Amino acid sequence: MIVPIVSVVGKSDSGKTTFIEKLIPILKGRGYKIATVKHDTHGFELDREGKDTWRHARAGADSVLISGPQKMALIKRVDGEMGLDEIVAEYARDADLVITEGYKRGDKPKIEVSRREVSTDLLCDERELLAIVADHPLDLKVPQFAPDDAEGVADLIEEKILKKARGSEHRVRLIVNGKTIPLGKKFTQDIVAKTVAGLVSALHGTEGAKEIDISIKL
Amino acid sequence: MIVPIVSVVGKSDSGKTTFIEKLIPILKGRGYKIATVKHDTHGFELDREGKDTWRHARAGADSVLISGPQKMALIKRVDGEMGLDEIVAEYARDADLVITEGYKRGDKPKIEVSRREVSTDLLCDERELLAIVADHPLDLKVPQFAPDDAEGVADLIEEKILKKARGSEHRVRLIVNGKTIPLGKKFTQDIVAKTVAGLVSALHGTEGAKEIDISIKL
Repeated sequence: MIVPIVSVVGKSDSGKTTFIEKLIPILKGRGYKIATVKHDTHGFELDREGKDTWRHARAGADSVLISGPQKMALIKRVDGEMGLDEIVAEYARDADLVITEGYKRGDKPKIEVSRREVSTDLLCDERELLAIVADHPLDLKVPQFAPDDAEGVADLIEEKILKKARGSEHRVRLIVNGKTIPLGKKFTQDIVAKTVAGLVSALHGTEGAKEIDISIKL
Repeated sequence: MIVPIVSVVGKSDSGKTTFIEKLIPILKGRGYKIATVKHDTHGFELDREGKDTWRHARAGADSVLISGPQKMALIKRVDGEMGLDEIVAEYARDADLVITEGYKRGDKPKIEVSRREVSTDLLCDERELLAIVADHPLDLKVPQFAPDDAEGVADLIEEKILKKARGSEHRVRLIVNGKTIPLGKKFTQDIVAKTVAGLVSALHGTEGAKEIDISIKL
């Protein structure tokens, strides 16, 4: 299954992060696994100077990982920004919903956050918007919510995005020569999932397989 | 693909990170893509308080990603530590070599770093060791290198690990529910490789498949 994505966009300082902070616990409380993707345009610095991982990166490692009992992290050099679909397929495929902060030029359903103090104009055309979160009234045909009504927005996301996505049973990701191959149709995903599951079930030690990963070099 | 792994182990403050810092640029200079995995046993803090990504994580997001033009990063909650093979299969598939810092109890070839000031005893049994990097002589049948001889260790890694990894025809790695399933016989590997390759070849966009990765959730 392709993980559904919703993008929270808005002008700088409009309250995107604050709104996402309200939305996440509500959706988590409803049982959804949530991944967020922050669109960074300037270049971020996550790691701290002097830490072992920071030293690995500075020495030239292409990818630096750290793994512990509660969390793991990856910092990876890229040669040009990754596409959002690729990021989600690679790194957030176990989520039920991906919420992006930013990606105003992307093709995902968008929720624009607007704050009167910053501007009463919107960034996006109303045709692109799933909803508006604003502290001022806008004369548009898009559902509007007050900044503290994250419950209302969660309802809309469930209705318009999550219920639609739920249909499929299997989730299959196929990468060939490093490139993700889109398996659009449920039928295709089913054939791949069931063939591989059948093959794997013939091997020792694979009883109760729920997650299968196969890597092959030909 | 099936990425070879070497573990740099040693007692605390023996110079593991310093040695890895010397090793990475040498291997990079020889054209290898390098990923590192730091084994964290205490719980690490990568992100900085107040940053948007930190706020997403604090709000309860299961995975937090940030994507920019030069790098991307992922911080993910895990329910118990991930296995090293799983981490590499998931997040370091595109590397030519994975160097771990730590994982002294793992089953990968190990290089033990030892510093007289800390201890002249080793952590590992010599049978587990590919090499020793020490500033004091040890009466063991394992290749020994001085701490500044990262070139010598890089030669050994190329000889013993990277060349071997290149040799094999099909290399199949199967992970079920997070556990690597040993596929001892070449016959079994061939069946899995050829069945999956046949299946994949029927899909669009998979011409010339040399490396195939499939992940399935049932």
